[in-house]
Amino acid sequence: MEFQSCFPVWGNLSDVQQNHILDSLISREIKAGTVIHNGSADCTGLLLVRSGQLRVYILSEEGREITIYRLFDRDICLFSASCIMRSIQFDITIEAEKDTCLWVIPAETYQQIMAESAPLSNFTNEVMAARFSEVMWLIEQIMWKSMDKRIAAFLLEESAIEGTDRLAITHETIAKHLGTHREVVTRILRYLQSEGMIKLSRGVVEITSREKLTVIGNT
Amino acid sequence: MEFQSCFPVWGNLSDVQQNHILDSLISREIKAGTVIHNGSADCTGLLLVRSGQLRVYILSEEGREITIYRLFDRDICLFSASCIMRSIQFDITIEAEKDTCLWVIPAETYQQIMAESAPLSNFTNEVMAARFSEVMWLIEQIMWKSMDKRIAAFLLEESAIEGTDRLAITHETIAKHLGTHREVVTRILRYLQSEGMIKLSRGVVEITSREKLTVIGNT
Repeated sequence: MEFQSCFPVWGNLSDVQQNHILDSLISREIKAGTVIHNGSADCTGLLLVRSGQLRVYILSEEGREITIYRLFDRDICLFSASCIMRSIQFDITIEAEKDTCLWVIPAETYQQIMAESAPLSNFTNEVMAARFSEVMWLIEQIMWKSMDKRIAAFLLEESAIEGTDRLAITHETIAKHLGTHREVVTRILRYLQSEGMIKLSRGVVEITSREKLTVIGNT
Repeated sequence: MEFQSCFPVWGNLSDVQQNHILDSLISREIKAGTVIHNGSADCTGLLLVRSGQLRVYILSEEGREITIYRLFDRDICLFSASCIMRSIQFDITIEAEKDTCLWVIPAETYQQIMAESAPLSNFTNEVMAARFSEVMWLIEQIMWKSMDKRIAAFLLEESAIEGTDRLAITHETIAKHLGTHREVVTRILRYLQSEGMIKLSRGVVEITSREKLTVIGNT
């Protein structure tokens, strides 16, 4: 898979702009568990995921976490290049959830081309709007949805990502995704188990009734 | 105050683009309390606030509200023209908090010029990034800050906006801004009163110790 075929507005850039990107493009391979971007101190550049999975999250001063969104094949991470826009005033952390291959377009290159290219700038608008939509969805979840429903929905999402009903995931990890405490997750998972929706064993959550879980997760 | 002097990238648009905007520009005067944009059904256009104050909020299915951000003189509202980007997949409601004068650039006009103008598209990116930053700030508040601190911070913010320590605001309105229940607000306001930070009377919250309130609101 080539960069050119993964980058959506490639055909709308001039030869000079294309060469500028290709000349500065960096390929990186990252092991699962690695933090690749950490707050506003970094301006890593624009990330384009070739394969793998990234988690974008925020950290509280006390070290609590909540997942903002996740990135999969061909997704683009804009906020790892927050220095390209002065109005980006927040810190995110990015971690590889799986072994991940990605391309990095250095922030300076991207910024220079975006300043002169309406297609690249409009593409950037669409990427940011898509992330904005995910964040607004998250606010609605946090505000209006109880934690049992959020956990049910999260387990179904994980199952869809992993393609299995048997999820190797700890209660602590679920808590970090949803911005809550491990104890809360454990209590709710036990309730879901008592209702016959899941089965818990060490480090594993197995979905035993997708139907019942969906009823909870989708309301 | 003229539109041209309020619209930041005016000087970077061509004569044709400038005339296109001026020909389709609409001036509106809106009474306090009026809802001027309601969910995705509307594509009102881009709003530029000439004077006044707008509140942008989301609504739950049960009718609960939370303020996402507020717009003041010379601020621009992008999401009232959500049809200009297909990736904007969320609904907001916009209400005038005070009598407001604004200009509306029809969505179609804005979209046409943005498609060809890198300056306008980059400006749109900056506006969206600024709103994104406000929304990320809101998530941090909701996730990591207790309601007494959020109410203290809100009262200080209101006081700064209104230029007075005597705020004509109901408990219900505070609850809608912060996405909580009136009963919760009443309980916390009484606590703040018992600590000598505010004084409550019918429809009024008066700040009596800005120092003490700031200690709570800023932690």
